Amino acid sequence: MRVPKHIGVIPDGNRRWAVNKGLNKEQGYDEGLEPGLQLYKLCKEKGIEEITYYGFTMDNTKRPSSQTKAFTEACINAVKLLSQEDASLLVLGNSDSPLFPDELLPYTKRTQFGKGTVKINFLVNYGWHWDISNLIESKEALKSNYFGGLKSKDISRIDLVIRWGGRRRLSGLLPVQAVYADFYVVEDYWPDFKSQHFYDALEWYQQQDITLGG
Amino acid sequence: MRVPKHIGVIPDGNRRWAVNKGLNKEQGYDEGLEPGLQLYKLCKEKGIEEITYYGFTMDNTKRPSSQTKAFTEACINAVKLLSQEDASLLVLGNSDSPLFPDELLPYTKRTQFGKGTVKINFLVNYGWHWDISNLIESKEALKSNYFGGLKSKDISRIDLVIRWGGRRRLSGLLPVQAVYADFYVVEDYWPDFKSQHFYDALEWYQQQDITLGG
Repeated sequence: MRVPKHIGVIPDGNRRWAVNKGLNKEQGYDEGLEPGLQLYKLCKEKGIEEITYYGFTMDNTKRPSSQTKAFTEACINAVKLLSQEDASLLVLGNSDSPLFPDELLPYTKRTQFGKGTVKINFLVNYGWHWDISNLIESKEALKSNYFGGLKSKDISRIDLVIRWGGRRRLSGLLPVQAVYADFYVVEDYWPDFKSQHFYDALEWYQQQDITLGG
Repeated sequence: MRVPKHIGVIPDGNRRWAVNKGLNKEQGYDEGLEPGLQLYKLCKEKGIEEITYYGFTMDNTKRPSSQTKAFTEACINAVKLLSQEDASLLVLGNSDSPLFPDELLPYTKRTQFGKGTVKINFLVNYGWHWDISNLIESKEALKSNYFGGLKSKDISRIDLVIRWGGRRRLSGLLPVQAVYADFYVVEDYWPDFKSQHFYDALEWYQQQDITLGG
């Protein structure tokens, strides 16, 4: 089975899930923790080398503060859960801002946990504009398709983006790494994660030709 | 009806269409001219202000020369067809390269044709890396979500990308403008374009919430 090296995960639909259950919107985020851990385990089992979780963005922090507080808390807890696994973990985002949680500052340098098997990038207070706003042209950059000055330069090209919650858009996820990514959408909300979603995405990915824009 | 202001068009599947008809791959490109003109007319009718056609990319020119020659020719003819309509037309791409056709050099400055009703961007020998490789950080850029140094800075944010031919990826289309774009995929190949594809995409787009990453 040809598996992607690097999966980008957009765990969307937490608020809609909560509203459907008669809860407040911000009560949906905690339900995303267990799915995140399950997905990590499935990826590890399949030999997927790298996962990027789209935690929250600078755009997201324009939401009501009860929501911002809740999704920030959920991200802190998710990173803590993942740091108990075999992972080479980096939390990346605008950490100069007060909206970046202090609890995650220790993770802003890539650190090996356990055997460090899976490279995990967890985006927290990430902004696409922040990421690419200071690119530096160089001959090296042209060769490598990479850039000096890209704040996410430690994150590889994404092969497959899986988005839960039915929306069909990238919402600013790593514009440089996602240029050639295949994009798979799961209609179910993220808190309703099932292993089958992941297997279906891999099955679909296998049928795609990989041309890297060629 | 809420229509997108700016549609990005990825007219894919010309080669697969040709192979299915028992033709050589490069014979599919000419069949894309009429669909491109039809789509322009539909957009104009619906009051869509801006269209970006994904002509060909620097990546595409790695293909066999018979194909490169054929899709270059098709793009030249498509631009000529569109210049007979009411359009404010710009051809954008790496025109310093010998792979950029001389015939299209006059169109590399935006020019009004007829009443100039629809803003048309036609990407020719475009490269995402070429586009964003020399961004310049500035306070103005941060405010506007735009960048000095972006080679496509005359092209607006894309609301809706429609891709023909079943693939679910951007293939390097305008990474900055596409960050929040909704992404609609038509299974049929581009030469099999039908008005209904366009109407279905607009219908689907109406059901999407527009959050711009918020």
